[in-house]
Amino acid sequence: MKKYNIGILGATGAVGVQMLECLEERNIPVNELRLLASARSVGKKLKFKDQEIEVIEAKEDAFEGLDFVLGAAQNPIALKFADAIVKAGAVFIDNSSAFRMKDEVPLVVPEINGDDALKNNGIIANPNCSTIITLMAVSPINKLSKILSMHATTFQAVSGAGVGGMAELEDQMQALTNNGEIKTSTFPYQIAYNVIPQIGDFLENGYTKEEMKMQNEGRKIMHLPELVVDCTCVRIPVMRSHSISVSVVTENPLDVKAIQDEVLKTKGLRLKDDPANKVYPMPLNTTDQDLVEVGRIRKDLVSPNGITLFCSGDQIRKGAATNAVQIMEYLIENNQ
Amino acid sequence: MKKYNIGILGATGAVGVQMLECLEERNIPVNELRLLASARSVGKKLKFKDQEIEVIEAKEDAFEGLDFVLGAAQNPIALKFADAIVKAGAVFIDNSSAFRMKDEVPLVVPEINGDDALKNNGIIANPNCSTIITLMAVSPINKLSKILSMHATTFQAVSGAGVGGMAELEDQMQALTNNGEIKTSTFPYQIAYNVIPQIGDFLENGYTKEEMKMQNEGRKIMHLPELVVDCTCVRIPVMRSHSISVSVVTENPLDVKAIQDEVLKTKGLRLKDDPANKVYPMPLNTTDQDLVEVGRIRKDLVSPNGITLFCSGDQIRKGAATNAVQIMEYLIENNQ
Repeated sequence: MKKYNIGILGATGAVGVQMLECLEERNIPVNELRLLASARSVGKKLKFKDQEIEVIEAKEDAFEGLDFVLGAAQNPIALKFADAIVKAGAVFIDNSSAFRMKDEVPLVVPEINGDDALKNNGIIANPNCSTIITLMAVSPINKLSKILSMHATTFQAVSGAGVGGMAELEDQMQALTNNGEIKTSTFPYQIAYNVIPQIGDFLENGYTKEEMKMQNEGRKIMHLPELVVDCTCVRIPVMRSHSISVSVVTENPLDVKAIQDEVLKTKGLRLKDDPANKVYPMPLNTTDQDLVEVGRIRKDLVSPNGITLFCSGDQIRKGAATNAVQIMEYLIENNQ
Repeated sequence: MKKYNIGILGATGAVGVQMLECLEERNIPVNELRLLASARSVGKKLKFKDQEIEVIEAKEDAFEGLDFVLGAAQNPIALKFADAIVKAGAVFIDNSSAFRMKDEVPLVVPEINGDDALKNNGIIANPNCSTIITLMAVSPINKLSKILSMHATTFQAVSGAGVGGMAELEDQMQALTNNGEIKTSTFPYQIAYNVIPQIGDFLENGYTKEEMKMQNEGRKIMHLPELVVDCTCVRIPVMRSHSISVSVVTENPLDVKAIQDEVLKTKGLRLKDDPANKVYPMPLNTTDQDLVEVGRIRKDLVSPNGITLFCSGDQIRKGAATNAVQIMEYLIENNQ
């Protein structure tokens, strides 16, 4: 069995560390694992199986000999090293938003459009976290009848802002329960016992960049160029799973039971839809595991072709690291 | 100036205590204040201005001589004493859901349909908390053009489950920050660091009773018998302010600026809509005050006649106690 040389760019962040765990859990055949980060992380050691691997500095000449680079760094770092990675002959599977909307770069959720990954020119983009979780949840509906439009309101975990976001919520909770001082740095306002209806910068139309990703990335991933999405993204005091309240309108009216059956058949989803017995998706249940939970599936009261549902998924796993590793698996399985 | 004899039924709960505070803050001309509760609260003392008032037992003969009774008790208690209150000649302004949908009982948000309160037969119902906050926020839109339909997703504080709900979140947070044991009793699952997409019991159509209140009560309060509302109610780890993400469709297309101007003119609302400067509604800002904050007002991307917005309001105050006291003020001002 062929083994692969794999690099992780931004290996010490929340998503990078999760990628390392996913490689181990999913038994990816690894020959060399190269952990790359900024100068200040050099020398740190991370555990992979029974080895301790030292972090080395991400530089242009650091990618030679790699088959895949999983990108867990921010846009400027991804943009800085993309050329060097492709020149070194590796496929760059990048979690930043830098390349997502470029025509020549596939944007992939393997369960939905895995084949798009095969038409790459060396770079494949990993979608936005709430977009992945939402599209996973509505993909069974789109199989039954084309989705025309969508209203989505997100309940986003602090992990979306990285390790710093999680530490900030924990520190604020400590302070609140011990009469300490509330400090903010990652988020513009206290997030403990609060919600903040802003994620990302605002555009002229009054939506944030994060909110527009659901439509822009959704169109590309689902091959629905005319999909219209109205989205409100809200940060809430939850650690690492995003939840989304969604209403979709489809071309034809659908039956709730048919959708539930389709969810049961879809890899990567778990049907949690027995409300009478208090069975529905919750972020606490999806934390630190790869499945997206879907439930509360019901006829939308506003539109005869509408369906309303609720879903939850781990933002660091399926919303980022797991999806990137799955893209790599898809390429490996298809001999790329 | 005439002074009134006022009773509070269920005086020791979260809403009852807040009613007492509101009476004092709003300088209601009180002659006698009678605090009524179940037998186990008898003898407790609550502060009102410079007096300490002892709680007495709520019994059928306990309402004689009262002009108004503010109801802060659950449905069975409200149903049990309504007749006795009306027979005693008092007006019963009731926060339970027992009478809300009865044709002969006005359901009132004073800023929206205050005049309905004047046509009462002794009972006036106070609406559901998220319904009050949402309708307050969309009422300026409905003035400009009739609202036809609405999608709403709520972010509901634990105070909606009373004092016990707030204590449970606080206890769970203490336990989490001190490695203690998580206990649940008021909520079916841990609420700290979690969200629960269920408030109230489920109906056959897959919606909860709480979710249907937004449509049923909304139709009655706004005099829009054909209003259709698709609502998802979610409990989140926030103390006492509810937030709601709302998209409405109106008869005619509206301009965002015109809506903002109308919000500025509406009593009880505070416009928080300057996203570029991070000004938007947040539950932490609306806690323990009476105004409902409205912001993030923008054109809905799905419907040409659609408007999307976000709002927050204190659930115990404007969502319950303040609104009830305002109904009483409205009656007093109109010599009822």
